[in-house]
Amino acid sequence: MKRTAFLFGAILIVAGVIGSTAPASGHADEPIYGIKLPPDYRDWKLISVAHEEGNLNDLRGVLGNDVAIKAYREGHLPFPDGTIIARLAWNYVPSEENNKVFGRAQSFVAGSPTNVQFMVKDSKKYASTGGWGFAQFKDGKPDEKADLKTCYPCHEPIKARDFVFTRYAP
Amino acid sequence: MKRTAFLFGAILIVAGVIGSTAPASGHADEPIYGIKLPPDYRDWKLISVAHEEGNLNDLRGVLGNDVAIKAYREGHLPFPDGTIIARLAWNYVPSEENNKVFGRAQSFVAGSPTNVQFMVKDSKKYASTGGWGFAQFKDGKPDEKADLKTCYPCHEPIKARDFVFTRYAP
Repeated sequence: MKRTAFLFGAILIVAGVIGSTAPASGHADEPIYGIKLPPDYRDWKLISVAHEEGNLNDLRGVLGNDVAIKAYREGHLPFPDGTIIARLAWNYVPSEENNKVFGRAQSFVAGSPTNVQFMVKDSKKYASTGGWGFAQFKDGKPDEKADLKTCYPCHEPIKARDFVFTRYAP
Repeated sequence: MKRTAFLFGAILIVAGVIGSTAPASGHADEPIYGIKLPPDYRDWKLISVAHEEGNLNDLRGVLGNDVAIKAYREGHLPFPDGTIIARLAWNYVPSEENNKVFGRAQSFVAGSPTNVQFMVKDSKKYASTGGWGFAQFKDGKPDEKADLKTCYPCHEPIKARDFVFTRYAP
């Protein structure tokens, strides 16, 4: 059975000031990996979905650009340069509309969006972090609360799958 | 706050033989609404995500064809003819990989797929069911266990949104 995991939502939660020890230099108003918000990411294809309980308490959709989707579907590892994986997340809220029809409380849906995160593969540019750059955006802007230095250490345990937790959901 | 609901997963759960009272005649080996599996549905854009507890116990991704996505984004109701909405669902499984990194059990991911359901808008062909045809597929084939006659009655309460529970997740 295939299972899907996607983690980097969690590891950016700790608020932190972007520091000089980051893999690339950056200002407070731009991601330290120099990643810009891909303008078309909301049109990308679905990789998988997930639910995080605890402090995150969200529902998430993981999307990939065409390079990512092709690699996933063909089972290519490591992901080729140019791969971008996007993790969208929304607050986890009960749906009164649905529950009324079900006749019981069982339905949870996407509430307001929390943030959007990206993994960008560039094996040369991001060689010191497994070939991946990380970014987090909120309301379409780089999220200043995101401590992007914490991303890579949390992704290291999944090195066997090129540092990507999420599996493709058929 | 926008909230997303998507329901027709639940209302097809009861196993039933496709009967002669269905809106369109059909054989046991094809959907009663005459809907074929859209070959490219897995490439469609994401509308939203959800989690159903209870007997369903799944994670779901709702995708739309281009007509559906355009209508959602522009806020068009009723949905135009040609709209197709797909509900994918997977068993809701805990992720040991993720939980190990989080340090606690909080992560749930997409397991094996359950079934895929569709709503197809054709205001003339499906006039007797709000303009919508319904279908369910399992492993790429029409699901004989699906009692498609139960779809429309459960969608009736959401007539104000053209019988569609799911809202677009930005």
